[in-house]
Amino acid sequence: MESIPYLALVSALAALALASYFFSTVKAAPAGNDRMVFLMTEIQKGAKAFLRQEYTWVSFFVIAMIILLAIVIAPLASVSYVIGAILSASAGYIGMTVATMANARTTEAAKEGPAKALPVAYRGGAVMGFSVAGLALLGLMFVYLLFVIWLEVDDAFEIVTAYGLGASSIALFSRVGGGIYTKAADVGADLVGKVEAGIPEDDPRNPATIADNVGDNVGDVAGMGADLFESYAGSIIAPVALTAFAVTGGLEAADATSSGVIGQLMFPMAIALVGMIASILGSFLVKGGDSTDSKALSHALHRGTNVAMGLTIVGTVGISFWLFDSAQGNPIGLAISVIGGLIVGWALGKTAEFYTSDHFGPVKKIAAQSETGPATTVLSGISAGMVSVAASVILVLAGIGVAYWGGEETLGNGIYGIAVAAIGMLATTGAVVSVDAYGPIADNAGGIAEMAELDPSVREVTDALDSLGNTTAAIAKGFAVGSAALTALALFKSFELAVQQAGGSLTLNVGEVDVFIGLFLGAGLPFLFAALTIDAVGRAATAMIEEVRRQFREVPGLREGKEGVTPDSARCVAISTEASLKEMIIPGSLAVVVPLVVGFIDIDALGGLLAGALVTGFALAIFMANAGGAWDNAKKYIEAGNHGGKGSDPHKAAVVGDTVGDPFKDTSGPAMNILLKVMTIVSLVFASAFV
Amino acid sequence: MESIPYLALVSALAALALASYFFSTVKAAPAGNDRMVFLMTEIQKGAKAFLRQEYTWVSFFVIAMIILLAIVIAPLASVSYVIGAILSASAGYIGMTVATMANARTTEAAKEGPAKALPVAYRGGAVMGFSVAGLALLGLMFVYLLFVIWLEVDDAFEIVTAYGLGASSIALFSRVGGGIYTKAADVGADLVGKVEAGIPEDDPRNPATIADNVGDNVGDVAGMGADLFESYAGSIIAPVALTAFAVTGGLEAADATSSGVIGQLMFPMAIALVGMIASILGSFLVKGGDSTDSKALSHALHRGTNVAMGLTIVGTVGISFWLFDSAQGNPIGLAISVIGGLIVGWALGKTAEFYTSDHFGPVKKIAAQSETGPATTVLSGISAGMVSVAASVILVLAGIGVAYWGGEETLGNGIYGIAVAAIGMLATTGAVVSVDAYGPIADNAGGIAEMAELDPSVREVTDALDSLGNTTAAIAKGFAVGSAALTALALFKSFELAVQQAGGSLTLNVGEVDVFIGLFLGAGLPFLFAALTIDAVGRAATAMIEEVRRQFREVPGLREGKEGVTPDSARCVAISTEASLKEMIIPGSLAVVVPLVVGFIDIDALGGLLAGALVTGFALAIFMANAGGAWDNAKKYIEAGNHGGKGSDPHKAAVVGDTVGDPFKDTSGPAMNILLKVMTIVSLVFASAFV
Repeated sequence: MESIPYLALVSALAALALASYFFSTVKAAPAGNDRMVFLMTEIQKGAKAFLRQEYTWVSFFVIAMIILLAIVIAPLASVSYVIGAILSASAGYIGMTVATMANARTTEAAKEGPAKALPVAYRGGAVMGFSVAGLALLGLMFVYLLFVIWLEVDDAFEIVTAYGLGASSIALFSRVGGGIYTKAADVGADLVGKVEAGIPEDDPRNPATIADNVGDNVGDVAGMGADLFESYAGSIIAPVALTAFAVTGGLEAADATSSGVIGQLMFPMAIALVGMIASILGSFLVKGGDSTDSKALSHALHRGTNVAMGLTIVGTVGISFWLFDSAQGNPIGLAISVIGGLIVGWALGKTAEFYTSDHFGPVKKIAAQSETGPATTVLSGISAGMVSVAASVILVLAGIGVAYWGGEETLGNGIYGIAVAAIGMLATTGAVVSVDAYGPIADNAGGIAEMAELDPSVREVTDALDSLGNTTAAIAKGFAVGSAALTALALFKSFELAVQQAGGSLTLNVGEVDVFIGLFLGAGLPFLFAALTIDAVGRAATAMIEEVRRQFREVPGLREGKEGVTPDSARCVAISTEASLKEMIIPGSLAVVVPLVVGFIDIDALGGLLAGALVTGFALAIFMANAGGAWDNAKKYIEAGNHGGKGSDPHKAAVVGDTVGDPFKDTSGPAMNILLKVMTIVSLVFASAFV
Repeated sequence: MESIPYLALVSALAALALASYFFSTVKAAPAGNDRMVFLMTEIQKGAKAFLRQEYTWVSFFVIAMIILLAIVIAPLASVSYVIGAILSASAGYIGMTVATMANARTTEAAKEGPAKALPVAYRGGAVMGFSVAGLALLGLMFVYLLFVIWLEVDDAFEIVTAYGLGASSIALFSRVGGGIYTKAADVGADLVGKVEAGIPEDDPRNPATIADNVGDNVGDVAGMGADLFESYAGSIIAPVALTAFAVTGGLEAADATSSGVIGQLMFPMAIALVGMIASILGSFLVKGGDSTDSKALSHALHRGTNVAMGLTIVGTVGISFWLFDSAQGNPIGLAISVIGGLIVGWALGKTAEFYTSDHFGPVKKIAAQSETGPATTVLSGISAGMVSVAASVILVLAGIGVAYWGGEETLGNGIYGIAVAAIGMLATTGAVVSVDAYGPIADNAGGIAEMAELDPSVREVTDALDSLGNTTAAIAKGFAVGSAALTALALFKSFELAVQQAGGSLTLNVGEVDVFIGLFLGAGLPFLFAALTIDAVGRAATAMIEEVRRQFREVPGLREGKEGVTPDSARCVAISTEASLKEMIIPGSLAVVVPLVVGFIDIDALGGLLAGALVTGFALAIFMANAGGAWDNAKKYIEAGNHGGKGSDPHKAAVVGDTVGDPFKDTSGPAMNILLKVMTIVSLVFASAFV
């Protein structure tokens, strides 16, 4: 049983080996003609420049946290923190590097049909997927073994938790900064290019096109990768920390192998181990067929994930019986907690799909409402997003109820069951992220086909590949959002226990006025965060719009497409980078500063704050993500020829909805989940200092 | 000291006498020519028809509640409940009757200038104001004296609380039903009339114009009146109930005069008494001058409210020292609680004004964003509304903190201070509602001037009067929303105490899973409620739009304005009535059914539900009200000639924002406040039954 962390470490190394194997196969694929290589290089240069500058900015924040942790908690907590931060940043950087190599190679392969192109895009995504999962698990197991088993330091579990805080810090800034960048570039490219200048999407004359493609990579690839790195690490840390803090008198490092709670400590790592092996096996099953039929392609792409999940479920049952048969905890109950989590995550994804896919009523209704103009489009999208909140809340609560019941015989009073339910959703992170990162690669491949003016048949293939990405993204989003709620709840409970361990007392009774004030403040905070990020996108987009307009105005022959005249794309990339990084500071800092300030003033109020922010932030995140997604697909549904099609008045109305939804679904919504977890994990790590 | 309820009863009678005096002076004023009388009568008929049908529908609900209360709580609770319901409905009916008489009379008086017209409109509003305050206080004092003092029945305070539930029931359905009606008619009139047929607002050819004017009365007059009736009654009930439930072992009716807590019981009634007298005195100071200068008019209109508030502050200090000098409680502290409440209410109003008036940055920014189209207009309004949430939350929390501190030496642990802070906001309800109801009367007067094709100089006067209404409405809204938060919090605490009195135990620890599940559910509920009401407006508006289009299509000569061709306004009124009443049922019932179902399953979860709904619903209500108000005024700012003025592209974008905001600010937002209170008061009344 004590060998589980070592085995998990080995499985993480195997995932990294797989990632490097996929990396070499992607690299070996041909990247196409000079123009394609040029475009790919430009996108790659822009994305790398953004990430480097982002990491430079974030490093100031990280250094401040290192100092704070060293002084207030323990110098070793800083070590753990910085390992989490560096690995998360590395995963983002590696994933983004390969994604920006795989795009042109997918385009080139698409000349020979989907059977060739699908594996290139998938393997590009899989480098990201297995880097994220592999590095996250590797680092966490290393930190656990180092501080808990080998060094047996004091407060070892607090130190392990700091690893999660490091990952969260990077995730927060990546999501906020990347989210602002991608939307600023998107709006700039669309508004000036498509609307004002009347040139098609991804047209080489548009100076913002490269920035737009860079945005897909820094937002959807690097941002999403950092997000899932922290979700995955957090979901394993939460039940471990909960167990450690739930032991009466505190679980010291020295007890961690001998205590009766070893089963509870090992269970999360064992599921992660099983999930990792299952994901690796599944990844070999993804092979493209010759047909561009979307069903066949979709089946090919998802085979890996489906197999990985199936194997994980089987493995979970086995592990539960092995670990809990003679120990504290009910093996069947805990297996049900984990599997229930997986099912709820899947159902959340399906709910998101129901509200955002044009196959179902809500999006069709939004499209129909576009007939009466943009106001009704916006209202029906808002309403659909709000109803989806109610549906998602009920699903999460069902998951919480089942998982709680399943974990009732454990230390941590059922909350342990909730914590392991989150791992159920995220055990197959390697497989899920692979498919999720595939989406932007296929999208970029289409952009390169357009910009390089290749034969339309190539674009057809890339479009077929691209369209698969949406469903997948919905499921991954369901896992991310569901696990965020469950993990935050488990961390919240750990915070309560940690305060008690540190000799403090925490009242979470909302009938007490300070707790209630905290709850109220917590409910207001996500609204402020959403407003700040929406405004940030607005300002960054304005900077971009002005630059694109200036180039069309001042560069002779650009708009007309005169031979040899190229736009200054690099400048657009630089402007978007600078604007989005500047805008990232305030909302990003809020997540860390607010709990620290409140916690040092009144720890009960902090408890209220976390609870209020968690429930309201979850609701707001779901609302924004699903309303945004619904508007996006309503527009696409109309573009497919319904309600008058492209260029009609309903289409114009739908474009308004889509533009409103852009910062909702790609900036504020996804960042909100991390906001919640950062606030909770900051509180947990600093719990003893508050006391 | 025991005479306070009697004196309050007398002051309520005085208020009613004043209302009937104002009624007779309004009635005596000339109503103008035949056309004006016809229009007035049509609006009145429509409004009365709506209210009668609304009350018919609601009576089924009321009867169900009567039966439920009689069985589950006590038959006398049903009596108290039905008194509250009938008086609230009567106040709405009276206010609406006089408002629909005062409109044409104001128009007629406007021919002779604002000095004549202002008093007519004000006195029309004052009938409403003093009917609301007078009936609410009269009924409450009667119920208190009857059950607590005269009959000395068991569980007398639970029975008094049922009075508040009766008022809340009417308020909820009036706000939801009236809010749906007014927006459906407004959208129908605007979209088909102004946009499609290209005829001006309030044009007599438009079949929906009468319905639109009816909507102003049923939404802004009757809905607002019922809202403030229940807010006012609730704010007095909350500290009384809190005191009663806070006495260890329970305060029986027989103790109510002899116990040491008499000061705490009498204090809320005494402030209401002082506020009522102050409001009556203030109302005589409202006199119009000859100038249409907005400063002078505004000063004339607000003199009554300002004087009433000043007198109330002075009286509060005196009463505090009288009641608490020798009893439990700190007189200075309690006076500060009350005055602090008044200041926070005022500041909330000013915050709402800052975010929604075109004199300040946020609305100017929305107007500027209209230059880049409807999407940026919508996004900047959403962001302004969300930032205003953060500002309002901080104000409310400051108020809660101060009021809690001021009330710390009382029974109820400082929450009593919070409860009386709400009375600070609402003691001058008579004066505040008078000015608030003045707004729609002046608005209607303008509509009648237009429809009766009077000289444009008349419209100028009515426009000058109308423009004063906005600031006032903002302040009244601040009081309503602030008091809702404080009252709900005090009722929430009373609920906790009532459960304990009934021998149950209530855990409000959000670390417990059932409380947390309730909290989560509570946070989701306001989103569902908002979505349901937005959709309801959409469906009712569609029914209206189709009818208006049909009439323009099928009635020959209507659109061209042929002599003798009049639209079938009555049919539009009927359609809007039917659609809005049908749509009112589900969201209205939700507020009552959800807490009952959850309460009977798990009372701890109900506690969490109330807390979650309170904080999230408050945030959502502020967001929707202020975003809606900001869009409205950004449109008006552009119509005043900025950013291209009427008919320009920015104006079109601003109209989209305004239309999105319509159900936000007039339906979902205002109804949300009552939703919170209904849920809390239902829980309080049924607390013993849940146990």
